[in-house]
Amino acid sequence: MSFTEFSSKLLENAVNEFASLPGIGRKTAFRLVMNLLRKDSEEVRKFGESIIKLRREIHYCKICNNISDTEICTICNDEKRDRTLICVVENIQDVMAIENTRQYKGLYHVLGGIISPIDGVGPSDLKIDSLEEKVNGGGIKEIILALSTTMEGDTTNYYIYKRLNKYNVFLSTLARGIAIGDELEYTDEITLGKAINNRNPYHQC
Amino acid sequence: MSFTEFSSKLLENAVNEFASLPGIGRKTAFRLVMNLLRKDSEEVRKFGESIIKLRREIHYCKICNNISDTEICTICNDEKRDRTLICVVENIQDVMAIENTRQYKGLYHVLGGIISPIDGVGPSDLKIDSLEEKVNGGGIKEIILALSTTMEGDTTNYYIYKRLNKYNVFLSTLARGIAIGDELEYTDEITLGKAINNRNPYHQC
Repeated sequence: MSFTEFSSKLLENAVNEFASLPGIGRKTAFRLVMNLLRKDSEEVRKFGESIIKLRREIHYCKICNNISDTEICTICNDEKRDRTLICVVENIQDVMAIENTRQYKGLYHVLGGIISPIDGVGPSDLKIDSLEEKVNGGGIKEIILALSTTMEGDTTNYYIYKRLNKYNVFLSTLARGIAIGDELEYTDEITLGKAINNRNPYHQC
Repeated sequence: MSFTEFSSKLLENAVNEFASLPGIGRKTAFRLVMNLLRKDSEEVRKFGESIIKLRREIHYCKICNNISDTEICTICNDEKRDRTLICVVENIQDVMAIENTRQYKGLYHVLGGIISPIDGVGPSDLKIDSLEEKVNGGGIKEIILALSTTMEGDTTNYYIYKRLNKYNVFLSTLARGIAIGDELEYTDEITLGKAINNRNPYHQC
């Protein structure tokens, strides 16, 4: 079934809008729109408005660039957070992933990407200047570089290291090692090598 | 990555709305919402409004139940259509599929489903009364039963046949046979049997 013929412009518009999303083809778009048509009018109004409102009213936190309903995000606003500790991440998904561990009590700094010449992303496209300003402003003891373990992540780490090296701040990265549940046999040699070199004293959990 | 922690209610709402659609999980919903955030505000407004407008302003044609921007759909309104011929289909997708063939010049009657006791759909849930009224009103020569070739489709066909049998109207069904491009070897025996019995005189295309 192709869709050269729509008996309704309204239907065609809605299908086109859904099909403009990544990974949503025209058939899926049509199926989603038909599903919306079966919902009641109030529900569909809420759906549409949630999207419009999100785009219109969302803020990026002035301090950490995390997504937020207010000018300063709930994390930066939280008095109980350790303000001497900043975790540098690529995007807001990474903030959410770390928050979900409930292990981290410092602040964040969202770069908005990583250095990737192949995608045309250079240091000036990322929030690195504002990170340096923060560190320069003083009061920060440690910066955790929590970027992906890829070539681009390593390049970005190194670039940030070069920029922040001159300040009196401790730079750290996430521990590399064998993931919980992984088997030694299938672990790559670099990870396994790091896991041996960075071994920890044994203690029962 | 799970999503127990959202730093933004607006984001959480939009993700929840997308995740309420069939076949869209929370990760996909999140990815779609992040994509919308990268679009410009005007584009996102159009997206949201296309959905709200669709649900609020859509009509189901008073004559055939097809989806329409107006009270009577463009097909029923089309003077060039053969008003003595009605094709009975399950849903509007089927109308679109047949329209795309550009072979059919009669009208439609959308049942809104097929009889399926297992899903709790009985004859009274479908637009069968209005079909009978149409036939009873006169002026109709032929009803084409174009339902799925399933148990439910056959049941519905039979039910409609029983209802319309007493009127002076010719009842037909779509031709069964081997689909274009199909190989005989892999065609099921019922289809192949029907294809042999309903064979057509050979003429070069």
